[in-house]
Formats: sequence, structure tokens, C-alpha cells
Amino acid sequence: MKVGVFDSGVGGITVLSSLLKKFPGIDYVYLGDTANVPYGSKSPRQIGQLATACAKTMKERGVDVLVVACNTASSWALDSIREVMGETPVYGVVEPGIEAVKAALSEISLDSPQSEEILPVMVLATKATVSSQAYGGVLRRTLDEEKYPVLEQACPLLVPMIEEGWIDHPILKETIDFYVKDFRAEYRRGVALLGCTHYPWIQGAIEAALPGWRVVNSAQAIATALERFFIPATQPFILKAPEVEWIFTDPEAVPEFARKLVQERVL
Amino acid sequence: MKVGVFDSGVGGITVLSSLLKKFPGIDYVYLGDTANVPYGSKSPRQIGQLATACAKTMKERGVDVLVVACNTASSWALDSIREVMGETPVYGVVEPGIEAVKAALSEISLDSPQSEEILPVMVLATKATVSSQAYGGVLRRTLDEEKYPVLEQACPLLVPMIEEGWIDHPILKETIDFYVKDFRAEYRRGVALLGCTHYPWIQGAIEAALPGWRVVNSAQAIATALERFFIPATQPFILKAPEVEWIFTDPEAVPEFARKLVQERVL
Repeated sequence: MKVGVFDSGVGGITVLSSLLKKFPGIDYVYLGDTANVPYGSKSPRQIGQLATACAKTMKERGVDVLVVACNTASSWALDSIREVMGETPVYGVVEPGIEAVKAALSEISLDSPQSEEILPVMVLATKATVSSQAYGGVLRRTLDEEKYPVLEQACPLLVPMIEEGWIDHPILKETIDFYVKDFRAEYRRGVALLGCTHYPWIQGAIEAALPGWRVVNSAQAIATALERFFIPATQPFILKAPEVEWIFTDPEAVPEFARKLVQERVL
Repeated sequence: MKVGVFDSGVGGITVLSSLLKKFPGIDYVYLGDTANVPYGSKSPRQIGQLATACAKTMKERGVDVLVVACNTASSWALDSIREVMGETPVYGVVEPGIEAVKAALSEISLDSPQSEEILPVMVLATKATVSSQAYGGVLRRTLDEEKYPVLEQACPLLVPMIEEGWIDHPILKETIDFYVKDFRAEYRRGVALLGCTHYPWIQGAIEAALPGWRVVNSAQAIATALERFFIPATQPFILKAPEVEWIFTDPEAVPEFARKLVQERVL
């Protein structure tokens, strides 16, 4: 069993990390299109072309399932990727993220079933993901918007700060605060969805900025989604150590912090 | 007379803006490789390939002179660009920036010729420009390092903040402060070189963070450098209004703030 994990850059390592924890006995191919990162600021047409080229590489590698661990590609290019992959199942991060939001909303509502409290869903993501309406559109179509209003916040500065290693930096904390403070002032609690694969690295700082809110992480959500589909097949192999093959379309463009993660195998 | 201005993205608009002010009677072609921005995080090999492709476009447009208004491409790809352009003169931003630093140092020294004061040169740039040693290397080779120590500071978060329109934002000011505070504490004055074409947009904020320092802007410096070479030929045409042809390799990837500059012609 070989699982492909594809991202525009290094953010998908958070997804790989969740998968390694849940399915340690499987082999992985990680493909980071670092020659073309970031996808978030590119046009849908170009995102489609780049994602298709990466899907071809994954197809050649013979992966049994492909996880598109990139919100931008999951939002804009899932159909083109599926076309390239043929029979091989392809999972984006968007659907599992949405399911995780709904599960969190149910849990909160179960705590106080009679409550009339409005529970907002805040989607934190890159500009491209927000404007794709990948999360916002589906959430609005499937949730009662009076009780569960959907708020979207593009946070374009978080990825550059994370790639700079500012995981715990006061300026990162202020920037998060700048992005969420208006929603936090309006709602005592709700569910915040980390709609970008880099954000799990700063989940602690985001949780600290949103006391009372439930923070849902789509990297974990996709591991949970895959569990449902793959656990039966993969259980027999669970005793072997996982192998990870790393492919970066521009190896020199891997940020220092990610290079360390890969080299020291601390995922 | 047609002048080509090439940048990886929209930063070169500051150079075009300086040129328009100094040479209003010339035609311009601006080429922003927005499909591949940013160059700053890519490998030298890839930067060379991308810059060469853009030079070919400029060659086809029949420009009479090409200004490489991108520090990364000026640092890593000037030779490959010159090869494509053949007889057409090619000017990078690095040399004029260095000359502007030296002119500023002389002016300060002339004020107090007997002074033993150490006058540092601080280069503020992207990571790629700093690691290319394009400015630092030449400055160290040609300046007396005891009197004019060269300090280099990579400022990877400034471009994302500028592209977010945070020209005057408190978090931008804090980030600038974070980058320069150690040098400012050590030296009362010196010369700071804006070694990235985005930085002229926040020159005011950088000057505010460095009281007593002279801030030198390589976008202006290249306009001054071109003056020496082109003014004689272009004077006769100065009465006509300038035309600017805009080419973006991915038009949808032009950041909002730059789109406004282009549309409202406020350069």
C-alpha cells in the first residue's frame, strides 16, 4: 500500500504527519511542488495545469491512493487531478475539513441542546481558498445559516510567518489577533476551521487567540476520513516501518524549517 | 525609444515609476512574471530559466534597453539575460544601488571629514538577494570594512505585508523594527540600502525606524544610472506622453494593490 501526499509546498507535511501517526505501517510518497509554490496567488487555470503535472508524477510512482493535501489544489483542481489518476482514489482536504466542522458543531450543540446560542463557523485560509468558496460555499449550503453563520477570513501573512519559523513569535500572535479579533468580539464561542495545511503548526497560537472556540484541523480530519476507507486493507502491514519518499520539484526552494523536519524525521 | 522593465512580480513598478518621472517621453514595456513570483525562494538554476524566458519576450517586443528591476534576477541571472538580449543593453538594479550607497557615504563623510565615526551600510533585501551576496560581496570588496562595515538583513515578511496593502500598518512597523533594531542600537547613523524593489513603497516606515540613517532606494538609483546613458538620445522625444504596455504572465495573480496602481495610472 503506497499513499501519495501532494502539496504545492511543504504545508502538506502536516497531513503526512497525521497520516504517519494513524497509519504507521504504510509507504508514502510526498510531492511538494516547491518550484511553483505558492499556488494560493495563482489563477485557477494555472493551478489546474500545475496540479495535473504533479498528478502525473504520482501516477508514475504507482500510488494506490492520492491525498491532495493542498487546500488551493483541492478547491480548484480536484477534477483535473481525478482525470489524470483514473481508477486511483483521490481525496482532497476540503470535504474532511467540512465533516470535522459539522462533528464539532454537533458536539457543542449536544452539550446544551436547548440553547438558542448562535454558533459561528470561522474559516481561516489563504486568499485563494477563501475566494474559491470551497469551504464557505458548501458550509452555507448545508448549514442553517441563522444558527451557524459562516465567517471567512483570509490570512495571507500566516504562511510566510510560519515559513520564517515564527511559530511562537509575538508578531505572529499579533497578526492572528488582527485577523480574528472582530469575530471573537462578536461571538463567545464557535468552530474555527484551519483551512490551510500550514496552520496546524500554529494551532496552539490560534487556540490561544480564540478562547472558548473549538479549533478544527483539516490535516487531522483527512487522516480520520482515510481511516474509514483504508484501515481494513492496511491493518496486515502495520508491523513494518513506514517509508517516505520525498520529491520536491525545486529541492533548493524547501524552507529551512521544513528541511529540518524532513532531515530529522520529526514529523 | 522603448525601455523594457522586467520584474518577477509587481515590485518593479517602483522602478518604472522612477523612470516615468525622470523620462516621461519614452515608451515602456513592463513585464511581471506573476505566474512564477516569487523568484526569491527559488533555486539559481530555476531563476535563470525563468528570467531567460522573460528576456525572450522582451527581445520579441523590440525594446531598446532592458532594465532588470528585480534584485533576485539581477543577482543570479544577469549573464543569461544578456546572452538572450545580444546587443541590447541590459541594466540590473544591483550596480546602481551600490553606487548610490557610495555616493551617500561620501556625502555623510564630507559633512565631517575628520570624523573617526564608523559608518555601517545595512542591506535590507529578500533571503535570496542576501544569500547571493550580490550587494554584500561587492560592498565588502570595495569599501574599507573597518570604517564601513556591511550588515545584511533578510526581511522575508516585508513583501507579503506590502502586497497585503499593509503600507502603514502597525504590524508592518513592528516587523521593520524587529529587523533593524539590533543594528540601530549599535550604530547612531549609517546608510540603509533598500535592496528589494518592493521596499520603496514603505520607505517612509523604514526611515521612521532608522532615525539618523540615510535610506537609499535602488529604484531611484537605476533611474539616475540610466540618465547618464540615455538622456542625450531621449531628449528630443520628451514632449510626447509615455505609453506603457503591461504584460503579466499570470494576469489574475497581480495583487489587488498593484492592479489599482496600474488601472488608476497612479505610479
